[in-house]
Amino acid sequence: MKLTPWQELTRELHQPAPTKIILFVADGLGGLPLEPDGKTELETARTPNLDHLAAQGVTGLSQPVGPGITPGSGPGHMALFGYDPIANEIGRGVLEALGIDFPLERSDVAARGNFCTVDEAGRVVDRRAGRIPTEKCIELCRLLQENVRVDEAEVFVAPVREHRFVLVIRGENLGDHVSDTDPQRTGAEPLDPIAEDPASERTAQIVARFVAQAKELLKDHHPANMLLLRGFSKHPDLPTMTEIYGLHAVALAVYPMYRGLAKLVGMRVANAGKSLADQVAALKREWEQGDFFFIHYKYTDSTGEDGDFRAKVQRIEEVDAVIPEIMALNPDVFIFTGDHSTPSLLRSHSWHPVPVLLVAKSCRPDEVREFGERACARGGLGLIPACQLLPLALAHAGRLRKFGA
Amino acid sequence: MKLTPWQELTRELHQPAPTKIILFVADGLGGLPLEPDGKTELETARTPNLDHLAAQGVTGLSQPVGPGITPGSGPGHMALFGYDPIANEIGRGVLEALGIDFPLERSDVAARGNFCTVDEAGRVVDRRAGRIPTEKCIELCRLLQENVRVDEAEVFVAPVREHRFVLVIRGENLGDHVSDTDPQRTGAEPLDPIAEDPASERTAQIVARFVAQAKELLKDHHPANMLLLRGFSKHPDLPTMTEIYGLHAVALAVYPMYRGLAKLVGMRVANAGKSLADQVAALKREWEQGDFFFIHYKYTDSTGEDGDFRAKVQRIEEVDAVIPEIMALNPDVFIFTGDHSTPSLLRSHSWHPVPVLLVAKSCRPDEVREFGERACARGGLGLIPACQLLPLALAHAGRLRKFGA
Repeated sequence: MKLTPWQELTRELHQPAPTKIILFVADGLGGLPLEPDGKTELETARTPNLDHLAAQGVTGLSQPVGPGITPGSGPGHMALFGYDPIANEIGRGVLEALGIDFPLERSDVAARGNFCTVDEAGRVVDRRAGRIPTEKCIELCRLLQENVRVDEAEVFVAPVREHRFVLVIRGENLGDHVSDTDPQRTGAEPLDPIAEDPASERTAQIVARFVAQAKELLKDHHPANMLLLRGFSKHPDLPTMTEIYGLHAVALAVYPMYRGLAKLVGMRVANAGKSLADQVAALKREWEQGDFFFIHYKYTDSTGEDGDFRAKVQRIEEVDAVIPEIMALNPDVFIFTGDHSTPSLLRSHSWHPVPVLLVAKSCRPDEVREFGERACARGGLGLIPACQLLPLALAHAGRLRKFGA
Repeated sequence: MKLTPWQELTRELHQPAPTKIILFVADGLGGLPLEPDGKTELETARTPNLDHLAAQGVTGLSQPVGPGITPGSGPGHMALFGYDPIANEIGRGVLEALGIDFPLERSDVAARGNFCTVDEAGRVVDRRAGRIPTEKCIELCRLLQENVRVDEAEVFVAPVREHRFVLVIRGENLGDHVSDTDPQRTGAEPLDPIAEDPASERTAQIVARFVAQAKELLKDHHPANMLLLRGFSKHPDLPTMTEIYGLHAVALAVYPMYRGLAKLVGMRVANAGKSLADQVAALKREWEQGDFFFIHYKYTDSTGEDGDFRAKVQRIEEVDAVIPEIMALNPDVFIFTGDHSTPSLLRSHSWHPVPVLLVAKSCRPDEVREFGERACARGGLGLIPACQLLPLALAHAGRLRKFGA
């Protein structure tokens, strides 16, 4: 855990105020044109409400991690919550556990698991066991959960999807510096889990015993006749947004991973239903119960990952349509951005900076009148590191005292 | 040696890809208008090819070291190679040795030397010995090389130009923290070399013995009747571009100092001939033998240092003319910039940021349609630290994995 210089300052300078901040994250918002001279998804979409806010507020481009660095959802959100995304990397095991809403405790060690196929000599021939159906995964997780017994620790085996599952080890004083058993290639045998520091010796022993028993239990379940583990990690135990910013933050997210990321920074996770309309209804319901609201919208990312330019445009228009209902609550600060870009052209997350919009009474207006990548590049916020947006929001919300006399 | 945060990340995230990157450095590229409302050298030059690329790619202004900091060639290039130019300062002795293609070994200690004039009392009256002709310098270096004998170390005295030479001390376990003997002013006696740490005690003794013998050998060679030494330094032993970025880099530079700087970061230095045409021919010849190509063009800097605005304009046009031949190779990423500005108005390097242009399929286009200082100030890259250009190039070349899950 390491605070950014801005967090060190906001921790010292934050003051109470009867103000409310909304952070709307349209996942994977930024895009690219399909043709060299074309428009991006956001530039193509009809977004009268966001354009209106762009004219009213200040815009810019948010850089999630750094130049050329393509962030996963973890670092992308950590940065938007104001945390240094490099110093606070969230382990893959923890992220996977958060993604299935597993009630992770601070001392748990989590790992991402794959069922895999090994040949008679024990060498991995398919790292994903032919992507077994999720039902099979559930069945095998139950088999392991009910039959594996490891002294000194509780072990949880929870299904994710297809060949993927989460292993959680619960016990006292378990370090998480254990090497992956996944050799990351076929033709090799699964690796032994090795402790990378003395505090993780016991964890490595527990993992080894778990793997040995699982191997025996799975041997007749071809193609899922073995498992691989990676990304051993613990809850990062971050200082909360209340401690650093004095905010009582509420998360309104449909997908478990984003609820989990919000929990890591101390947000209260409200029941946000299943759709954007549900989330907006939840926002209204929760409005008096917090002063910072994180709304997460997934489909701008998933349509980008599908390479479906038109669908991403539609999803952006869908978001635009709910903006008036949100703004009717009169937030003191409204931020609209993404955690990273997901251009349909690339069918994946990318390193390109993300359009950002901040509306508040104390905004110094810029000349930007529409919300899009090219327009935001001329905006008053410039190219701003994502982790600096939160201190800026606090300032506009009257929540930061003067620094120095 | 200290990696930037981006280098730490790229070292971890780089992945192989069958892609090629070209970095074209027009030395001292940035300029200033001669009249307050006039155009810079680059804005004046007819550059249809660079303008075309500016329309196609993304532009910005590259900041070599920091605001107001005028870089020498060392830091200017270190930054473009992605290295922190402040943490990785290259010593003057090493730079001078690189500048004459001296085959410096990792354990050598190099210093820059000046022949100087001292009066009868031994006080420096001319730090440059009246800028003796280079032939005289060669003759005196030979005199020293053949006659000075120092136990425990080999000593090399190599001429540079006029009063300048390089001293290289080769031996075991020689520290390079030795103070300058150059008092940096006339009227003072040359200083004794002092070890600034225990590891450099022996080096200081060797230097003292060298100076004592040289004093005796030079005494009848007025005006070059003494010498001054400064900038004792060793090869910085940097991690290579292959280690940090996974790149096999090839340098195509005519001038020795730039070849030397490229060697410091592990580039292979190809025979690039004597002219820009030779360099382009070498680029074609080497195209299959590397994935990163550094082309250095000197004359945009030297014309700027001469204060010759017209000549600098011509040199820029000369460079523009070879661009189509380079782009015909279809590099996946093409970066065109300078290592610093050298405005003819100032007749010297300056701190002004440098126009930069990046072309790749995954560029998010900006509104800039021409390549010049004012246009680039509105470009999509914004004001970008020079050392962030390389990670960005890697991303566009598909050579960086996602960070975090």
